[in-house]
Amino acid sequence: MDIDEAKGMLHLEKVDHIGIAVKDLDKSIPYYTDILGLPLLKIEEVESEKVRVAFIDAGNIKIELLTSMDETSAIHGFLLKRGEGIHHIAFGVKGIEERLAELKEKGVQLINEQPKIGAGGAEVAFLHPKSSYGVLMELCDKSKTEG
Amino acid sequence: MDIDEAKGMLHLEKVDHIGIAVKDLDKSIPYYTDILGLPLLKIEEVESEKVRVAFIDAGNIKIELLTSMDETSAIHGFLLKRGEGIHHIAFGVKGIEERLAELKEKGVQLINEQPKIGAGGAEVAFLHPKSSYGVLMELCDKSKTEG
Repeated sequence: MDIDEAKGMLHLEKVDHIGIAVKDLDKSIPYYTDILGLPLLKIEEVESEKVRVAFIDAGNIKIELLTSMDETSAIHGFLLKRGEGIHHIAFGVKGIEERLAELKEKGVQLINEQPKIGAGGAEVAFLHPKSSYGVLMELCDKSKTEG
Repeated sequence: MDIDEAKGMLHLEKVDHIGIAVKDLDKSIPYYTDILGLPLLKIEEVESEKVRVAFIDAGNIKIELLTSMDETSAIHGFLLKRGEGIHHIAFGVKGIEERLAELKEKGVQLINEQPKIGAGGAEVAFLHPKSSYGVLMELCDKSKTEG
């Protein structure tokens, strides 16, 4: 872990991944692997979000390619409205519930008041882009998955 | 540096920063510093791009907040068309000219065939989102600035 414990002020430890919405996961993966030369880590379906995701290892962070499994997925709506492109930034945190409470108290608009289970079994919650100057941000707590 | 030299296959070393377009730099900086608790590294004007940028330390990568200095800036056009939000991903590379030639040969559409000087004196070049599945990607070579 590259967390500098001396930086006690940091509420967000580091960027865990960047989420990118794509129309066709299988078509876009080779761009990252064959052309950019980045390793594919895994492909997984997140049933609760109706998304199929591929994790690419970009060295210090991961790239999460996301495609919708059906029309109820938020990624389906994003693709219709904005087209393919960067969807969110996910920050790694510990104590996600306390972090959410803290951000809410500071006036940040939360999409998820309580964490839900995301890819890889991590606890995740989204902050609304309205209070984050246009950026959809995710908090991602892997404490319970990584022991 | 957290570059794993053993990963010789990687053409892109790591993600250097995520670029985020904002309307008002001075208004958006406190969201990152005071609310998210991330340190502000520096503010700088990149005359060639007509942008004013603030670098935020997100631990393992930097966040580059960008605002336009006038209407000729690409960021001005982005803000008009898309509004505030994530603008690009920048990958750190060494040998940027060779990397650009290599990507072009692989069919990647380049916005800049030759690198130009970006923030912090780095050599930078952009790849067109058309061939990158909707993502504006920057290559960023700091070899000549860091020694």
